[in-house]
Amino acid sequence: MEIHDLNGTACWDFLGARRLGRLGCARDNKPYIVPIGFAMRNPYLVAFTTFGQKIDYLRANPSACVQFDEINSPQSWTSVIAYGQFEELLDAQGQDEAHRALESAAWWEPGYVKTTILGHLRPADPVYFRIFVEEISGRRGANI
Amino acid sequence: MEIHDLNGTACWDFLGARRLGRLGCARDNKPYIVPIGFAMRNPYLVAFTTFGQKIDYLRANPSACVQFDEINSPQSWTSVIAYGQFEELLDAQGQDEAHRALESAAWWEPGYVKTTILGHLRPADPVYFRIFVEEISGRRGANI
Repeated sequence: MEIHDLNGTACWDFLGARRLGRLGCARDNKPYIVPIGFAMRNPYLVAFTTFGQKIDYLRANPSACVQFDEINSPQSWTSVIAYGQFEELLDAQGQDEAHRALESAAWWEPGYVKTTILGHLRPADPVYFRIFVEEISGRRGANI
Repeated sequence: MEIHDLNGTACWDFLGARRLGRLGCARDNKPYIVPIGFAMRNPYLVAFTTFGQKIDYLRANPSACVQFDEINSPQSWTSVIAYGQFEELLDAQGQDEAHRALESAAWWEPGYVKTTILGHLRPADPVYFRIFVEEISGRRGANI
């Protein structure tokens, strides 16, 4: 297997075809990972979620990473990781822009208000946010 | 969409059919994620890698998480996260057991010594390790 580094342009190109990322955050040096759909707006990764542990962590420590990959086999894969800062979108304009970015990324879930957990309607507590990417790197492994 | 919590047994059952997890670690509260193949040995997740940033982080801070998922759509998914402690397998017996567990998980990559990075043969610096799972939780989302 040969492993190649991807430069910044190649990393963003790879992200352009992705939606699903794994968002990583940490609190008191305890890591947490959650899968989330993103819209790519270089240098931002835009997302939407409802309140939960990840937002709790990210409000306390905005240092985040998002990992994207395409893994065909242990010998054939691409993985990209973006590091950056969590920025919550609180004003109506920012939320509207995020909404439209996610809609065009075809990952938008308008039915979230109907989500139920254990039979109880999930509180509609939408959180729009973006990760300001400060550093991005990637690798690709392929058979030789 | 309805979201259900998975109990510990359901989480381990889900892991039994998985190989690929995303390992999360953190250093100075900066998270890092890398995709790795695991063999499940309740209460351990066993893995093999070569030396790199993740091992550097995990030696400094053994608090880790591993996230597994199966995502068919934003409305149909399962995600499980295991929290625990990184334990490097240093003795021959532990490494041999890990080797066999990974072989049986069909994720073993015997060709790692042939891996090249940027044209240079990658140093064969194998690291066998396991995550001792202290806490596991999961959720499943499904259309109603």
